[in-house]
Amino acid sequence: MAYQKSDGMNYAPESKGRPVVKPGEFVFAATALDHGHIYGMCNGLFGAGAVCRGVYDPDPKKLAAFHDRYPDVPMASSLEELLEDSSVQMIAAAAIPNLRCDLGIRIMEAGKDYFTDKAPLTTLDQLARAKAAVERTGRKYMVYYSERLHVESAVAAGQMIEDGAVGQVIQVLNLAPHRLNAPSRPDWFWSQEQSGGTLCDIGSHQIEQFLHFTKNTSATILSAQRANYDHPEHPEFDDFAAATLLGGNGATQYLRVDWFNPDGLSTWGDGRLFILGTKGYMEVRKYLDVARDCVGDQIYYVDGQGEHHECVAGKSGFPFFGEMILDCLNRTEHAMTQEHIFLAAELGVRAQNEAIRIQPRADERRAPYVSSI
Amino acid sequence: MAYQKSDGMNYAPESKGRPVVKPGEFVFAATALDHGHIYGMCNGLFGAGAVCRGVYDPDPKKLAAFHDRYPDVPMASSLEELLEDSSVQMIAAAAIPNLRCDLGIRIMEAGKDYFTDKAPLTTLDQLARAKAAVERTGRKYMVYYSERLHVESAVAAGQMIEDGAVGQVIQVLNLAPHRLNAPSRPDWFWSQEQSGGTLCDIGSHQIEQFLHFTKNTSATILSAQRANYDHPEHPEFDDFAAATLLGGNGATQYLRVDWFNPDGLSTWGDGRLFILGTKGYMEVRKYLDVARDCVGDQIYYVDGQGEHHECVAGKSGFPFFGEMILDCLNRTEHAMTQEHIFLAAELGVRAQNEAIRIQPRADERRAPYVSSI
Repeated sequence: MAYQKSDGMNYAPESKGRPVVKPGEFVFAATALDHGHIYGMCNGLFGAGAVCRGVYDPDPKKLAAFHDRYPDVPMASSLEELLEDSSVQMIAAAAIPNLRCDLGIRIMEAGKDYFTDKAPLTTLDQLARAKAAVERTGRKYMVYYSERLHVESAVAAGQMIEDGAVGQVIQVLNLAPHRLNAPSRPDWFWSQEQSGGTLCDIGSHQIEQFLHFTKNTSATILSAQRANYDHPEHPEFDDFAAATLLGGNGATQYLRVDWFNPDGLSTWGDGRLFILGTKGYMEVRKYLDVARDCVGDQIYYVDGQGEHHECVAGKSGFPFFGEMILDCLNRTEHAMTQEHIFLAAELGVRAQNEAIRIQPRADERRAPYVSSI
Repeated sequence: MAYQKSDGMNYAPESKGRPVVKPGEFVFAATALDHGHIYGMCNGLFGAGAVCRGVYDPDPKKLAAFHDRYPDVPMASSLEELLEDSSVQMIAAAAIPNLRCDLGIRIMEAGKDYFTDKAPLTTLDQLARAKAAVERTGRKYMVYYSERLHVESAVAAGQMIEDGAVGQVIQVLNLAPHRLNAPSRPDWFWSQEQSGGTLCDIGSHQIEQFLHFTKNTSATILSAQRANYDHPEHPEFDDFAAATLLGGNGATQYLRVDWFNPDGLSTWGDGRLFILGTKGYMEVRKYLDVARDCVGDQIYYVDGQGEHHECVAGKSGFPFFGEMILDCLNRTEHAMTQEHIFLAAELGVRAQNEAIRIQPRADERRAPYVSSI
């Protein structure tokens, strides 16, 4: 359990927000504390000025842990209590992935906006039902795509692209290793059905970045792979996955996600983001600058003028949370459009569904074997 | 022409060899000076103790340039003169890519080993003829895969993998940007037929690395893309290409090659090599450490113990050349097997042939268009 405080599951940056509302103007509640991302979600909301009116989870241990962290938040005795509280405008939740959609529909049916951890859903059937519920209720199904929204260098990279730093973006390449920390993982983590699978789960983060940085509103999966190279004790689990996407405007993405972050790394993953443009390129070393600096948010970029390096930690903050709150109050879509959210989710599911599963072999002279599971 | 001395075409490291033979024990000649890599090839051979008995090119300018660099090498008046010189054991050549195979067959038919610049051939028909000629003549068809053989950090990475630094290698990822320096490029460079195309040409380097680092002797192309994003004046040219390969043992590769190296970069390309293993990973910053250090050969690696960084410039040298010379003298295959050489070449051709060509569009709401050319 040595790294329990340093894996992606517990990544919850402290709020660096600027309140966009006065106390009480935006009220949320929290439930389904299954994934540690709930703390990042709450921190983001608090930083933007939101107030949390209550929290509920059927597991008393999870509820107690939340209470330890945020003692001012009242503990509710049921989800219904939160759903029936007319002062609550949004409910934030980090349920087991395959339960996220149904929970969201229930929340939206109760007249509240929904803010869920990624991946927001795990099947195309859920996607159809989520879209119908948004249409029917007029509520929002927002997603915590933390690897962009809660990483200052990713926020800054988006702004630099907007400002023309690299010209037209033609490729986004994401390397997203994660520390496994197997003993800390709940049972659902190892189940394809419950977790949605590595491409759906961690892949959806990367796909959301691709759509955002290339301004694509459509994309297809050209190729996807998944494999279990070194964890036979969890046969459904993919410890490696990758995909290539083609956006409607011709830009491509390659994303690689894996659970092989070595114990010797000082943080939970050496996440990298490479953005290739017609006039330059950018590399974002998100969580550290390996063997150089344990502070992350390092942006390296090269353009016609020279090579540049800047640490943007503490500079851009996390504007998403405030924008989302204002979107909820004003029924606008400045933080992120519903179409974008659902497209990223859909592509994550499709990548997962369409991926071939590689079966490693010791005797590589036999033809590569691709299994159907 | 500001960068003529700093593009990949003129990448010719000085010899850092250790002579493996006494003067006169291994004699080669040079011809077909179409690609600047001929100088890297000669430097490598000289460093390992070889003597160059003569050089020929039909273009007097190219011949004069070679003579300026190596004034001790006699200028021959025809290729026949070199082919008929029984003291010449090997002929090194960097012809226009689609002519490399026929030249090699002629050289092998004359009883000499052949050492060609990559890509060694550009079609599957040429591959079949090259294999038949090797079989028939018993001569070697060696290839200058410079991006591994003539890069000390790539050599060192191979040794580290051999020593178990990262466990079992499950993925190799290559980013291979190259400076275009368009005004310096000969006409054949822009022709798909003559150059073989970007995946065949620059891709073959990367594929050779994949096969070597993962010890694969078979592989298939899972996916390949090529595109011309920003050079409409050269419609056949691909300024971007990428491919995903699956090796027989289940390891994968992603390779990305492009011609968008920005003018502001201090060298011809920020080539990177990422090697993911079950016990750690390695990143090789081959030609510079962008915005940090203009000296290349920087290896970053992380294992169970910690994060490590080492600059290996000047440490490992280039053992390939001496090993190749000894292989020629002893008819062994320690430097590289003929099977490996032809497999890398074949996969480069297949990647090129199987790639979809992406057609960028300004209006990305239309379906992505993939052309057949």
